Amino acid sequence: MPVSKRKVAVLGASGLVGQRLVRSLVGHPWFEVVALGGSKRRAGTPFRDVLHPLGSGDLHGAAVPQELADMRLLECEPGAAFDCDIVFSALPAEVAEQVEPAFAQAGYAVVSNARTYRMDADVPLVIPEVNHDHIALVEKQRRERGWRGCIVTNPNCSTIALTLTIAPLARKFGIEAVQVTTMQALSGAGLSGPSALDMLDNVVPYIGGEEDKLETEPQKLLGTLAAGSIEPMDIKISAQCNRVSTVHGHLECVAVKLGSRVEQDELLAAWAEWHPLQDAGLHLPSAPAQPVIYLQEPNRPQPRVDRDLENGMASIVGRLRPDPILDYKFVALGHNLARGAAGGTLLLAELLHASGAID
Amino acid sequence: MPVSKRKVAVLGASGLVGQRLVRSLVGHPWFEVVALGGSKRRAGTPFRDVLHPLGSGDLHGAAVPQELADMRLLECEPGAAFDCDIVFSALPAEVAEQVEPAFAQAGYAVVSNARTYRMDADVPLVIPEVNHDHIALVEKQRRERGWRGCIVTNPNCSTIALTLTIAPLARKFGIEAVQVTTMQALSGAGLSGPSALDMLDNVVPYIGGEEDKLETEPQKLLGTLAAGSIEPMDIKISAQCNRVSTVHGHLECVAVKLGSRVEQDELLAAWAEWHPLQDAGLHLPSAPAQPVIYLQEPNRPQPRVDRDLENGMASIVGRLRPDPILDYKFVALGHNLARGAAGGTLLLAELLHASGAID
Amino acid sequence: MPVSKRKVAVLGASGLVGQRLVRSLVGHPWFEVVALGGSKRRAGTPFRDVLHPLGSGDLHGAAVPQELADMRLLECEPGAAFDCDIVFSALPAEVAEQVEPAFAQAGYAVVSNARTYRMDADVPLVIPEVNHDHIALVEKQRRERGWRGCIVTNPNCSTIALTLTIAPLARKFGIEAVQVTTMQALSGAGLSGPSALDMLDNVVPYIGGEEDKLETEPQKLLGTLAAGSIEPMDIKISAQCNRVSTVHGHLECVAVKLGSRVEQDELLAAWAEWHPLQDAGLHLPSAPAQPVIYLQEPNRPQPRVDRDLENGMASIVGRLRPDPILDYKFVALGHNLARGAAGGTLLLAELLHASGAID
Amino acid sequence: MPVSKRKVAVLGASGLVGQRLVRSLVGHPWFEVVALGGSKRRAGTPFRDVLHPLGSGDLHGAAVPQELADMRLLECEPGAAFDCDIVFSALPAEVAEQVEPAFAQAGYAVVSNARTYRMDADVPLVIPEVNHDHIALVEKQRRERGWRGCIVTNPNCSTIALTLTIAPLARKFGIEAVQVTTMQALSGAGLSGPSALDMLDNVVPYIGGEEDKLETEPQKLLGTLAAGSIEPMDIKISAQCNRVSTVHGHLECVAVKLGSRVEQDELLAAWAEWHPLQDAGLHLPSAPAQPVIYLQEPNRPQPRVDRDLENGMASIVGRLRPDPILDYKFVALGHNLARGAAGGTLLLAELLHASGAID
Repeated sequence: MPVSKRKVAVLGASGLVGQRLVRSLVGHPWFEVVALGGSKRRAGTPFRDVLHPLGSGDLHGAAVPQELADMRLLECEPGAAFDCDIVFSALPAEVAEQVEPAFAQAGYAVVSNARTYRMDADVPLVIPEVNHDHIALVEKQRRERGWRGCIVTNPNCSTIALTLTIAPLARKFGIEAVQVTTMQALSGAGLSGPSALDMLDNVVPYIGGEEDKLETEPQKLLGTLAAGSIEPMDIKISAQCNRVSTVHGHLECVAVKLGSRVEQDELLAAWAEWHPLQDAGLHLPSAPAQPVIYLQEPNRPQPRVDRDLENGMASIVGRLRPDPILDYKFVALGHNLARGAAGGTLLLAELLHASGAID
Repeated sequence: MPVSKRKVAVLGASGLVGQRLVRSLVGHPWFEVVALGGSKRRAGTPFRDVLHPLGSGDLHGAAVPQELADMRLLECEPGAAFDCDIVFSALPAEVAEQVEPAFAQAGYAVVSNARTYRMDADVPLVIPEVNHDHIALVEKQRRERGWRGCIVTNPNCSTIALTLTIAPLARKFGIEAVQVTTMQALSGAGLSGPSALDMLDNVVPYIGGEEDKLETEPQKLLGTLAAGSIEPMDIKISAQCNRVSTVHGHLECVAVKLGSRVEQDELLAAWAEWHPLQDAGLHLPSAPAQPVIYLQEPNRPQPRVDRDLENGMASIVGRLRPDPILDYKFVALGHNLARGAAGGTLLLAELLHASGAID
Repeated sequence: MPVSKRKVAVLGASGLVGQRLVRSLVGHPWFEVVALGGSKRRAGTPFRDVLHPLGSGDLHGAAVPQELADMRLLECEPGAAFDCDIVFSALPAEVAEQVEPAFAQAGYAVVSNARTYRMDADVPLVIPEVNHDHIALVEKQRRERGWRGCIVTNPNCSTIALTLTIAPLARKFGIEAVQVTTMQALSGAGLSGPSALDMLDNVVPYIGGEEDKLETEPQKLLGTLAAGSIEPMDIKISAQCNRVSTVHGHLECVAVKLGSRVEQDELLAAWAEWHPLQDAGLHLPSAPAQPVIYLQEPNRPQPRVDRDLENGMASIVGRLRPDPILDYKFVALGHNLARGAAGGTLLLAELLHASGAID
Repeated sequence: MPVSKRKVAVLGASGLVGQRLVRSLVGHPWFEVVALGGSKRRAGTPFRDVLHPLGSGDLHGAAVPQELADMRLLECEPGAAFDCDIVFSALPAEVAEQVEPAFAQAGYAVVSNARTYRMDADVPLVIPEVNHDHIALVEKQRRERGWRGCIVTNPNCSTIALTLTIAPLARKFGIEAVQVTTMQALSGAGLSGPSALDMLDNVVPYIGGEEDKLETEPQKLLGTLAAGSIEPMDIKISAQCNRVSTVHGHLECVAVKLGSRVEQDELLAAWAEWHPLQDAGLHLPSAPAQPVIYLQEPNRPQPRVDRDLENGMASIVGRLRPDPILDYKFVALGHNLARGAAGGTLLLAELLHASGAID
């Protein structure tokens, strides 16, 4: 272990995403968890007492070490108890609203999975493989808000799965329109998600707020940073979001209209050859070797079978074929928890660390 | 019981659709089952011995009466044993290929759920509410093929759910394009469908042949009969079909491009006011009072909750809203077995009977 | 409609059991719903606004009529608004504790599904087929408590399924011990039951308080009323209760030690010939024609396939065979909602009405 | 890699158990796969072409290396192509009947998961933690059958989960009777198990042949080897077996009658202190550090949450409490595939290797 691991804290450690994050940080080469934040009501409770059996998020082999299990939850207020540089926020959106700016103002780099500030003009919304350059927006944010710290945000889980697959197409061929219908897993709704009685032998064709996020976040992610602000990509997105009975893994049926006439093989090549982090010389510990994996079998990807490929950090694609209305259609799968929530947030912190944006 | 019930037979009585059909015919006001056909191997077996616990297709209260249960399966060959006018075919497609023409030639009216002849130019493919006039095609069929009987066909189950919802829009406003992503129930795959080990905590984004049917059958159904042939409607359809863990009820996320600029309320009115059979003076016993039912709740329709409305014979619609790429999007639900396979075939036989196309 | 239907009310009308009860009462030959009670917070709300999509409990064809849907929920306090003789209580146990005695004291006959008073010495706990004579206990209850009304109680849902199957054996052969392991359906936990994330690809081997109920209630149900009190049957019961992913229908693996040496055929006959209500001249509208149905197939009963037999009012039994430790083992299935909660409560009210215990 | 890894083959490599076995052998410290056997029909097919997406059995991180994927399936006949000492048999029982003796006669040590020869008097049926001494029976087997090789067998998956939990109790306190009701996972039925249509919203209270295995195999496993034969333990076992909708992990509700009066804490201690392999100086690579793990939480063990503890090689126990009929009851969980089928067979081969029974 190097002497100088960077100290981090996790806010919202009693939720599904927070617990998965904590476990993902066990043995991390760059980061070391020194504090955990929970609700006021839970302050003082040892972490072990809020550990939920599902909190591992099927992160196999990642038990919580003794000293983390013994760590007592702190109230989420900046101060000496949070003796660290980075705070991960897995807070509910309405709690994040007050807490995240307070930490940013107090000098912490807040790396957030909450939706609250994602679409703010001076807040980077970043998928490292897609738009790592947007991280530079924190300079403007600090200047304008007078903060020593900053807030950077991880997109919605269904957004990440989609955007990883369309980014290489957008970069190479342009994209004008995207139709996407999702079949989203239960863990995306957290520990207080839908009841088994509602879901068994059923599909719920509605997830509150989800379609709006999926229709707008990719525009910002694929946008261009110029003169200190993001020009969103001009791309029409239509989303229909469904909750289905899978534990993890959002499956998405996608159709795209490209900016130019392209052969099917060119799309496959665009995915296969896309290694943007490696090309940028960014070697982040949690980054997948292959961010988009194409499966040849006619009936893949499938959530239970394929979600753990690349430790769940990649988007898995299959069934590419022409679309009679737009240009091409395909199926995409992304692990909503391993990548979407916990892993995406961690990767973003690694980018922030590697980019030198925090001292 | 009136003296003059029309005698019918069911071919393929050992499958899920065949068994549901037989039960749907118990107590039918116009039809009386006099013979049941099965595979050569099963000829002579009493129907009770092939009855599967799932064969009721959740048709509540419809036990199989003693005399039907005692009926012995016949080999599927026209002859004296089939002493009837109409034979329902719930045969596998490859078996239907030989058997159905044999019966048609021998003078039977074959009302088929098999996909084999659906797209033949002189074979009516009919949803009574959508294109009951196409039944007239049997005249040409008889003439050209020299048959005394005929073959008329019921569309694929996912086609019916979709076409019932877009037909009133097509009639009133025109339709240019339809994007549809389905989440289809297990009973659509019959008794030998996917294994529980494959489906639990999973979605399979592929159903063999299904997308092709869903992209072509509505064009014929919405087409125009003129000069003895069908001119398909010029409508682009793109389908993505998925198998999910529901027992019955295909859920479909649909987006449509209409032929003219239309307000949202006009679509709702088009659905609410659509009673084509009643308007045509066709009073078929199995027809739903309301073929398209719109639900106001933001998270409906749902398969388990809504599939049994109107005895499963209607398409249930919800979540109508503008689409950023095409014009509108919505969610549709159809009971694949109650309407799609068994009910649609029965309704078609009722139309054939009522239309006077058989003597 | 006969002039003289007895007026009834349903308390707890916003829960799963309450809603199923209300629907079961639609068109009832003896009873007419005149009032609905809910929580203080919901007082004044029209019933239609609390109707849950699952509230029908799969009671097919039982829509809620206009005048019931319009009925406004009342606070659960005895008074003029409750212009009726019988109040059904589908209240949570802790609410029932105050509310039920208040109604009983005010002269109402309270027919309760709550567990609160079931084991009280002067409160009848009754399955009409098993111990309809225990209803006489209300006389003692009224006398001792000085009530004009009364409280009678319906057992726990898993108790009913079990007790219906062992009662005829106990009556005929005696029973000394019962081992039972249950696999209980989700609807048994009501609308706020376990989350889908907890249940998918899982079984939870624990249901709070359930094993205690299942080990004690049958002793009282099978007990003897003498000198105004119940002598419980001396029978050892060991229960292990599990929650599984079924919508309705508690499946129970049972082993019994009988009071005498009995051949297997004698058990089958004991079940087949058991028609206690009919034998007692009690013709209750909701009573099943056959309270215990034995299925011969080696792999039955199964929850989804068999739970709706006899409108869900019977216990379905199968797989009777010798037990190496006790005497015999078998599998039993009971519909926890159709019979266990709503149907059992309704049947009990019918018994109370028919027995003349209320004027 | 040491020079001298022992060469092994896997027969039945196209099934679920065979594929999991092959993957478990990747990187094994003692064994090296040199041949794979399949059905006659598949002979010559590269292993990669029969790899099923579920064949990993959720063995995370265990991809099949190139040279194994390229290996062509051989017909299952002893000969030069099988250049190895040990053959694992994951064959169907009826195929194993001929194939296993042929290999044993030809000098191979056959380590089998098939049920065919388990109960033969001269065939060791072994769970290494329970009865590793029974392996000595191979001497008698070789002598009597004139074989150079031998057959040793792994018990049924539900047997292993149960027997691991009762063995330490039997050794320490004696056991007279065991009541067990199982809720078994889908992967226990292999790739051609029950259909999703049969299992969704359902439990099937029957598994062909399973109860008989579970009632007899533990008697042999807990028996005593004396004078070259096994004296079965005199213990009454009653089993009721159910198939439920879980992917992996058989859950078992158990009640036991012990041979002596014992306090609850003594049972907990018996489980906690039981390390029979370590005590015998047997250090087998796949053996769990703790073969029986007790969970304190009131609602555990649960299949999805707990099946992967100790790499799925342990039995997980919980809810120990007095039983009103026998002495104690508890809940046990065993991973049917990781331990029950593939892992148990591998551990047995390790025992055979370590015991010096093969040269």
